[in-house]
Amino acid sequence: MAEEVKLLDFWPSMFGMRVRIALAEKGVAYEYVEEDLKNKSPLLLQMNPIHKKIPVLIHNGKPVCESSIIVEYIDEVWKDNAALLPSHPYQRAQARFWVDFIDKKLYDVTRKIWGSKGEEHETGKKEVIEILKQLEEVLGEKAYFGGESLGIVDISLIGFYSWFYTYETIGNFSFESECPKIVSWGKRCLQKESVAKSLPDPKKIYDFVVQLQKALGV
Amino acid sequence: MAEEVKLLDFWPSMFGMRVRIALAEKGVAYEYVEEDLKNKSPLLLQMNPIHKKIPVLIHNGKPVCESSIIVEYIDEVWKDNAALLPSHPYQRAQARFWVDFIDKKLYDVTRKIWGSKGEEHETGKKEVIEILKQLEEVLGEKAYFGGESLGIVDISLIGFYSWFYTYETIGNFSFESECPKIVSWGKRCLQKESVAKSLPDPKKIYDFVVQLQKALGV
Repeated sequence: MAEEVKLLDFWPSMFGMRVRIALAEKGVAYEYVEEDLKNKSPLLLQMNPIHKKIPVLIHNGKPVCESSIIVEYIDEVWKDNAALLPSHPYQRAQARFWVDFIDKKLYDVTRKIWGSKGEEHETGKKEVIEILKQLEEVLGEKAYFGGESLGIVDISLIGFYSWFYTYETIGNFSFESECPKIVSWGKRCLQKESVAKSLPDPKKIYDFVVQLQKALGV
Repeated sequence: MAEEVKLLDFWPSMFGMRVRIALAEKGVAYEYVEEDLKNKSPLLLQMNPIHKKIPVLIHNGKPVCESSIIVEYIDEVWKDNAALLPSHPYQRAQARFWVDFIDKKLYDVTRKIWGSKGEEHETGKKEVIEILKQLEEVLGEKAYFGGESLGIVDISLIGFYSWFYTYETIGNFSFESECPKIVSWGKRCLQKESVAKSLPDPKKIYDFVVQLQKALGV
């Protein structure tokens, strides 16, 4: 049976980017469906009735939701290509721990940078740097969080890297001076075709966020 | 090499209960170490420096943190005994989705019931029932969320069941009349030795929470 793979996504979403990269790493062809989040499609509401959020991977008609779960699903289904999780249970648990850390900590903090003013905005800047410094320690001297090759932690984090220009411009600070190792890591990831073709232009994200700020009255 | 398995835990924790049940299902002997969360041990701070939370599983000296990640780790290491996750990638993704749903939704909502008064308390009661009704639909006519045997979704939810008496007594409502299927499911789980020996007495939890309310000034 021919595989039918469809991705419901929204271009600036760092969560959607995870799925795009995972599919690209595995060499899986798919249909990309752009969602209008202000007017969600009946397909999205049908496929993710619980959270009503992108990304949703629809594989042979069946939906998988939540980006980290989708990446693990992709790794398990197309298991003969580039492994996204380590094979040893302990290393797998460690990778899942850092993905969970990114999920729990990073989004809310980065949102403060562009979604608020004053003290909360300043807190967001301080916290994002603390989190990235912690991740720099995890990266250590490795090329990728996954070691010699891109893994699930890299895939979970790199979408945020495409937003760095936005955070820096709005927050008037520099990641290069605060956490240079993460910036080098981001550049290294972008040399991979799977990543380069899955991330949008950072300046386009910035323009999008400026519009969003206007709409939200930030 | 003899396996050295240690669990840093706190008896009323529904997250700790998950790990106790998973180890019991696998027949793994372990040392249980009770933590005083008001005065965390140097071992806990060393083994979980990021979140500083229980449960932590220490396997041959190496820590695994975050209850859902620990349960998957246990399933992968002791893979010849009772499987806690389904074998098919799609079913695995579905199981992970509902575990994630429980993690994201249920704790915060149940905390409102005992941790607040007035409107927030009432909202907590309403929301917990909505969530459990959604889970009743997922359970359907199956004996367990895992089908014929206890799985990771059952393990993730059953700890909350041991708190039902507390929520009902403080909130003055009845789960039996609101979501009878979940109550039947909870009773069914408790017939399993792995569950029965891992859950504390619901009345002991209630006494603990009443003390906690006094300490927090609720």
